[in-house]
Amino acid sequence: MIVKELKPEDKDILENLRINLDKNNEFMLGYPVSKDFDYQELIPFFKFPINNVGDPFEEGTNKVQTHFMEREVVSFFAKLFRAEINNYWGYVTNGGSESNLYGLYLGRELYPKAMVYYSDATHYSVRKNIELLNIPSIVIRSQKSGEIDYEDFENVIKLNRHRPAIVLTTFGTTMTEAKDDVSKIKNTLIHYGIQDHYIHCDAALSGSYGVFVEPRVPFDFVDGVDSISISAHKFIGAPIPAGVIITKKSNRDRVAKGVSVIGTLDTTITGSRNGHSVLFLWYALKKYGFEGLKQRYHHSLEVAAYCIQKLETIGIESWKNPGAITVILPRVSNEVILKWQLASQGAISHIICMPNVTKIQIDELINDMVKFPVIEQPVAVHF
Amino acid sequence: MIVKELKPEDKDILENLRINLDKNNEFMLGYPVSKDFDYQELIPFFKFPINNVGDPFEEGTNKVQTHFMEREVVSFFAKLFRAEINNYWGYVTNGGSESNLYGLYLGRELYPKAMVYYSDATHYSVRKNIELLNIPSIVIRSQKSGEIDYEDFENVIKLNRHRPAIVLTTFGTTMTEAKDDVSKIKNTLIHYGIQDHYIHCDAALSGSYGVFVEPRVPFDFVDGVDSISISAHKFIGAPIPAGVIITKKSNRDRVAKGVSVIGTLDTTITGSRNGHSVLFLWYALKKYGFEGLKQRYHHSLEVAAYCIQKLETIGIESWKNPGAITVILPRVSNEVILKWQLASQGAISHIICMPNVTKIQIDELINDMVKFPVIEQPVAVHF
Repeated sequence: MIVKELKPEDKDILENLRINLDKNNEFMLGYPVSKDFDYQELIPFFKFPINNVGDPFEEGTNKVQTHFMEREVVSFFAKLFRAEINNYWGYVTNGGSESNLYGLYLGRELYPKAMVYYSDATHYSVRKNIELLNIPSIVIRSQKSGEIDYEDFENVIKLNRHRPAIVLTTFGTTMTEAKDDVSKIKNTLIHYGIQDHYIHCDAALSGSYGVFVEPRVPFDFVDGVDSISISAHKFIGAPIPAGVIITKKSNRDRVAKGVSVIGTLDTTITGSRNGHSVLFLWYALKKYGFEGLKQRYHHSLEVAAYCIQKLETIGIESWKNPGAITVILPRVSNEVILKWQLASQGAISHIICMPNVTKIQIDELINDMVKFPVIEQPVAVHF
Repeated sequence: MIVKELKPEDKDILENLRINLDKNNEFMLGYPVSKDFDYQELIPFFKFPINNVGDPFEEGTNKVQTHFMEREVVSFFAKLFRAEINNYWGYVTNGGSESNLYGLYLGRELYPKAMVYYSDATHYSVRKNIELLNIPSIVIRSQKSGEIDYEDFENVIKLNRHRPAIVLTTFGTTMTEAKDDVSKIKNTLIHYGIQDHYIHCDAALSGSYGVFVEPRVPFDFVDGVDSISISAHKFIGAPIPAGVIITKKSNRDRVAKGVSVIGTLDTTITGSRNGHSVLFLWYALKKYGFEGLKQRYHHSLEVAAYCIQKLETIGIESWKNPGAITVILPRVSNEVILKWQLASQGAISHIICMPNVTKIQIDELINDMVKFPVIEQPVAVHF
């Protein structure tokens, strides 16, 4: 009804933003975001307010939605994670935080008196989720690799045999892409007689290629988890953050409630839900398929190996976990952190070789590291 | 790297979806979603994985973001809701559920022993939020209009003077667009000496035009709230569900924590955040401005009045709350509910005259109501 043009100064702001994003997008090697997506074909859908409100496996009143695609996406991952054919459920979330919140929420609903256990290498959002859900928790040490310290876990479990346990394992930690072994966790719980337990696997980063990792690290339903979450904007790639949570249908049924205003079941954390992300994800999975995901992973592995080798030629020792696509190196200079947006923590920085990263980019990064070396801080002398 | 075409059968699925959405989108009068948005100019941004991770008022490592626009959007609404100039904060959320969760979370962090009060006309997601946050709560009756029953509220408060109170008021309820009077709530709390209180206003539907409503209903910071949330995909319109939460900066500071991996403060519910919705909202506000929002509201009011008048001509008595754009009528037939996607609850249905709704559409709907009347159920006779 009101057709107004943007003011010239606002048009300039937009244009500058576009130019800046273009530049910054090119130099992003520190965040696990694949940038080689192409959703051109989906642009006509942007005129619809697609809203996947309610349970994707139920039909509601609202018809401007993509529930049937959501069910296909959920089924794809349920199969990938070896969920029981007749006992899985899930939905497309706004990203890792919501997915993990859902997993922990189901755990708490099943075992209201449970203690949550997670390692100190776990994604920072988990602490916030636990706080939101108001559950007591104990942080377990991680090994140098970033993997949970199974001995520390066992020692803590020994002292808490009287409480149900919710364990949040990580399959691809934020800094070192370490993968917690779900079988070992499960065995410890069983060994100490904790039958009331729930394991949620945060596979945000590595879930989409977990099945191709060699040697295999146990992380899925057959290995013993009750729910798994992945991020869609990471390995697969999407303009908008999104995630998937896969859980057992039997657990979801315990929290489902009918809501007449939407004419369906309210089983998801958010009410109105992004139906475009579902469309992106469906489209990407149709295009890539199982084989495409595998090829993407192998490309990433190759670039990661190349990166380690090239770093060695300039005298920098780097390493990566087995099967990982994340290279860990001594903290780089601030100039390099800023330009390449390398996430850095304490003494380390990392380079994540997402499927869009090329050997040419690695070469450029290494040139910059030579150009802007780390300057040793003079030791302060106090008199 | 893998350039694969979509299979012909998948292309067909996409094309059918587009046709269906086009059709269903046209006949949607029961959900509060403005469909007259036009974000064509923003299409070039869809190739960027814009991620507004972290606090919008802090600078992080990731540069592919629209934080500066987010700050402008937050400031616009903070001003509209008469927040203190130097004491507001906020961010763009994934929609009403996340916004309300944030408001309730801040309330709980301030007063961990509080009781939550909300009316039975409150959005269904609030109950879920309260469950997630693990806070005890009491549901207050609502009046026939949908507004909270102030007498019932007072009676309950009288019996709970020993506990801090978190009150969730609604400014535009889901079914009847009723608006709770924040001043009356505040006065009751003060009258009974409950100094430790927090009021969150869920203004998802009516917040964007609340300032134009006559007679004015108290709902903002000057009236006494501690936080307000609105939905962006409702009155303003956006392809993707989004919301805004505005709160007092001093309250946010109490929950802020630094996170090195993103090089910024983690103050939001979700970690990775949708930067495109921020762009949409910034763009819409720049285009509409204060005057544009006012015009949109007046158009809606006019269509709502027209709707009531036309319903009268076919002998159907309908009504609306003062200043509301939602028309309440006796439950229509299932054919009409399905075609026009009219949310219906018990004996009532509603028509929401969003800014995109025209008098022609109202005429068509009324024609359908004549064509598919409600068939009286024969009364069952038992012998």
